[in-house]
Amino acid sequence: MDVMAAAVFNGKLTYVEDYPVPQIRPGWAKIRVRLAGICKTDMEILKGYKGFEGVLGHEFVGHVDQCEEASWIGRRVVGEINAACGQCDWCRCDLGRHCPNRSTLGISRLDGCMADYCVLPVANLLAVPDHLSDERAVLVEPLSAACEILEQLRPAGNERAVVLGDGRLGILCAWVLATVLSDVTVVGHHPEKLEILRWRNIRTALKEKNVMPGADIVVEATGSGAGIVAAMALCRPRGTIVMKSTVAVSGDVNLAPIVVNEQTVLGSRCGRFADGLSIMREFPDMPLDRLFTARYPLARVREAFVRATQSDALKVLLDISPSDEEKE
Amino acid sequence: MDVMAAAVFNGKLTYVEDYPVPQIRPGWAKIRVRLAGICKTDMEILKGYKGFEGVLGHEFVGHVDQCEEASWIGRRVVGEINAACGQCDWCRCDLGRHCPNRSTLGISRLDGCMADYCVLPVANLLAVPDHLSDERAVLVEPLSAACEILEQLRPAGNERAVVLGDGRLGILCAWVLATVLSDVTVVGHHPEKLEILRWRNIRTALKEKNVMPGADIVVEATGSGAGIVAAMALCRPRGTIVMKSTVAVSGDVNLAPIVVNEQTVLGSRCGRFADGLSIMREFPDMPLDRLFTARYPLARVREAFVRATQSDALKVLLDISPSDEEKE
Repeated sequence: MDVMAAAVFNGKLTYVEDYPVPQIRPGWAKIRVRLAGICKTDMEILKGYKGFEGVLGHEFVGHVDQCEEASWIGRRVVGEINAACGQCDWCRCDLGRHCPNRSTLGISRLDGCMADYCVLPVANLLAVPDHLSDERAVLVEPLSAACEILEQLRPAGNERAVVLGDGRLGILCAWVLATVLSDVTVVGHHPEKLEILRWRNIRTALKEKNVMPGADIVVEATGSGAGIVAAMALCRPRGTIVMKSTVAVSGDVNLAPIVVNEQTVLGSRCGRFADGLSIMREFPDMPLDRLFTARYPLARVREAFVRATQSDALKVLLDISPSDEEKE
Repeated sequence: MDVMAAAVFNGKLTYVEDYPVPQIRPGWAKIRVRLAGICKTDMEILKGYKGFEGVLGHEFVGHVDQCEEASWIGRRVVGEINAACGQCDWCRCDLGRHCPNRSTLGISRLDGCMADYCVLPVANLLAVPDHLSDERAVLVEPLSAACEILEQLRPAGNERAVVLGDGRLGILCAWVLATVLSDVTVVGHHPEKLEILRWRNIRTALKEKNVMPGADIVVEATGSGAGIVAAMALCRPRGTIVMKSTVAVSGDVNLAPIVVNEQTVLGSRCGRFADGLSIMREFPDMPLDRLFTARYPLARVREAFVRATQSDALKVLLDISPSDEEKE
């Protein structure tokens, strides 16, 4: 049996060198992973989220190593993380990311990408244009999740938007909104993060009370239950609150403002990779590189996760299979 | 100074006979009230909601007694409860019910209708068609609030809807939805209320677990913080949860399903009276009369409120000024 290096979670996070190489099914591809990113969801899994056990990771860029369609072999790719059934109503209307039968790379019933190899349906793959570096390409997944807001909301362009949270997700949401809106403000508690996120006309504030209420769009990306309370207060009547972080509220939270002001709360999760790639092509000056905090070889994955949980950290990367040139 | 009978709340609910008759301002009308309804909001005010003090009540039918426009005098009317400024952006797009300068009949900065007379802007009045009884007309306000769902959602007709809650609001929402949808189920815990709400094809269930999840539309009208949890579970991915009751959630509530399933939560409050009147005209068989639990003279308002808070109660009415014929 072929074995490989992998970052495995089974109650604890371990680096192993003898994990079985995944086998492809018909219609699937095996990908040699080059670079993977650590995401908040990975850290949640370490705390028990979804009860997932197996190889971690869902943000990657790699090369197709094996699949039935010869044209894909050797191509540099990223991949949509939900492996959908392709048969149900959701799949038929291009919403496989809600397919009830889906498995999800490194999150649910499918080993992830923090390993030498991972597998995904060929239908999930997108070729990475040559001009795009591995480092930018590995951000397609979180950037697409931010792009989901535009797909769901379709703003007219004159809306005033406020993003709550200056973590990776908040920053990416702000950058995506700033491509179509001229009035975007990010509220965050980390001056150094607010500094790096400045792009286009984005404004920043350290406190919610410094932001004028009555925003048309408020994006909740704090990762904290208190975010929804701040969002209700900052959003105008009949405005939209976009919920990006999967949070629980604790204590007594009065949701009456949503009803009284007839606000719309829009849950928003994964996006289409095509949108992420297309916004990268259209806005090559989007300062994605500012998100990189540190880079570790896979063997030091435990250190990498420790670094990723530190409060100043944004994106921590894992180098997995160096390319043949690099090996030489 | 002219005085009148009124149900006044000032820390406690009292019936008084020497309350000053309200004076009209330019553009306003004085209405001789015939019949008023007790609403959940009135009961919340008795517990301190909005810190309101003054004459209670916002559901009424009456006759115009005094106003500048002679054509209104003597007409039987109902009235929109939000007295808006008429100048702001909200007012200009016919959304005076979100006007930031509004006062609200019997709820905020404006004495209500549980009195011989109340005042409202003439612009808020709607003439009641002759064929409509006082009893049905007094339900225009809560029925319009239910109609607001159709204005915000504009369903296509093939959606499956679930209404959580078998109180007045839940019942009215179900009836309104049943005018455009063939698949409406109400979940409530009172067999006798579920019995009276049957109309058209509406189905009922005593437990949420007896309802198939995956509904396109879930209306939360339980008046309880737990309703949102049940709504998230019953609503399909990308479906809509309509929040009608102004509630607080207590304890730990995990809002992640809204994000993971990309549900839309739509806060929904007052509606346009024109919509309420129009649905009454279009559906004369809507069994509104089944909502009447009891009827008291204004002098017995305290008894009436006690009756309205009992768990089997639906709509309790207050007889205020009998018409001249009745007096004779």
